[in-house]
Amino acid sequence: MTDERTPVTVIGLGAMGRALAGAFLDSGHPTTVWNRSPGRADALAARGAAVAATAAEAVTASPLVVVCLLDDASVHQVLDPVASTLTGRTLVNLTNGTPAQARETADWAAWHAADYLDGGIMATPPLIGRPEGFILYSGSRTAFDAHERTLAALARPSYLHSDPGRAALYDLALLSGMYGMFGGVYHALALVRSERVPAKEFAPLLEAWLTAMLPALHIDAAGADSGERTDADASIAMQATGYVNLLDTSRAQGVSTEMVEAMGALLNRAVAEDTSDLVGLLAAERAPAK
Amino acid sequence: MTDERTPVTVIGLGAMGRALAGAFLDSGHPTTVWNRSPGRADALAARGAAVAATAAEAVTASPLVVVCLLDDASVHQVLDPVASTLTGRTLVNLTNGTPAQARETADWAAWHAADYLDGGIMATPPLIGRPEGFILYSGSRTAFDAHERTLAALARPSYLHSDPGRAALYDLALLSGMYGMFGGVYHALALVRSERVPAKEFAPLLEAWLTAMLPALHIDAAGADSGERTDADASIAMQATGYVNLLDTSRAQGVSTEMVEAMGALLNRAVAEDTSDLVGLLAAERAPAK
Repeated sequence: MTDERTPVTVIGLGAMGRALAGAFLDSGHPTTVWNRSPGRADALAARGAAVAATAAEAVTASPLVVVCLLDDASVHQVLDPVASTLTGRTLVNLTNGTPAQARETADWAAWHAADYLDGGIMATPPLIGRPEGFILYSGSRTAFDAHERTLAALARPSYLHSDPGRAALYDLALLSGMYGMFGGVYHALALVRSERVPAKEFAPLLEAWLTAMLPALHIDAAGADSGERTDADASIAMQATGYVNLLDTSRAQGVSTEMVEAMGALLNRAVAEDTSDLVGLLAAERAPAK
Repeated sequence: MTDERTPVTVIGLGAMGRALAGAFLDSGHPTTVWNRSPGRADALAARGAAVAATAAEAVTASPLVVVCLLDDASVHQVLDPVASTLTGRTLVNLTNGTPAQARETADWAAWHAADYLDGGIMATPPLIGRPEGFILYSGSRTAFDAHERTLAALARPSYLHSDPGRAALYDLALLSGMYGMFGGVYHALALVRSERVPAKEFAPLLEAWLTAMLPALHIDAAGADSGERTDADASIAMQATGYVNLLDTSRAQGVSTEMVEAMGALLNRAVAEDTSDLVGLLAAERAPAK
């Protein structure tokens, strides 16, 4: 019985690229790796990876080429000189970037007759190859269907849309939601610590509370789509008034208000502009000049 | 069979006070109400509430006196002149305030031989009397045990600690966590809308992602208690670098960065001060002057 596992190439061996290559190796895929600066591939080579001498050699080694580099400029620095070698292959770009960059790279790949998938990795390197993380993909549905099982070696694959920019958009939006949540968590824990109460005593209550409040995001989502929030119960003006108490009490407790001030300002602007569309207020053309 | 339900008094008939009195009435408690400015009690009177002519009359009508006023100063303006009438009764203060104010009012109540509970209402007025909300209590355990069933008419009661300030502290911390989370949610939805993608298509993924990430708060809580984060996996420096991409891409999408800038600054400060204790950085003495 021949080994049917697709040969794969991983270009870019930072912490994430090394994790990706390692997951392919663990799943038994013939894996070729390449990095601009040498030395990053030693441990992978010891685990069975083929180390390509050039980027062109790396691309031609496999029908599926995964790139995970520092940024979009790095992608083009590495791939532009070897573009012709991509013809007939599938390029999976897991480099962080903007939706516009993803669409531009998809057009570039199409010009060179390569199938293109853009991906957003929703996992840290240690979670690659484990069930907790997932990777969002957008672009060529054909490429996704052909390689879904191979990509599953990295993290749970989730196909979003034929627009190649969709994965970058969702990746960024999910990350900003997460950082916002943890900004609130840090402030909450700092308040609890300000009274010398162990944060770990409070954490389960905070987790339960945020879990219970989270579904209200569907009200905000509907409001963002319609331009008007539909829950008449939660008066923005009353929230803005109550927010002053939150800021004042934080200061009284000796806790910096830096993580919670922006929401107070947003509530005040909503009151001043007589709108309940808090998401709409974040559209740049309506935001105050900085 | 006599009616065993405890007579209750509600002082302060704003939106929340009216909801509290209505919930007591719905549960069959003989309910006396009073408000500084008249006219707020009419609908409650029609539902069976006794409307007291003075604050003293309101206090003496019931063994359990619930106050829900604008702020701590209002509590003292209303109750100081009638302090002697509180002797032997239980005062439940559901007015928003600081932990220090709660402890001061508890001392004041003890001086007048009244039992004291301070409470933090984790519900909006429409949720009062329904199972979704809850009220945190701290202070006299005796008072809580004696009146837990009566207080359950308002919202699920949860007793925290004999320190009367604990409920105010937790109330404020939970609210700030919630506002932080929704700040992130608003930014995420604004990003999605910047590509004209319906927010409601994205909302389920955001809910699943934040639910999956939320348990990491226990790592932050342990870190806040020890002064050092224990997850070596999540490098602060790497997060700070990646955060620049989040800010740049938000700007490129025409979305204001106002809700997400503070986290970027906090990550940068953590790198500059070579600490992983992000919660500790919010202690005011270490925060930059404003």
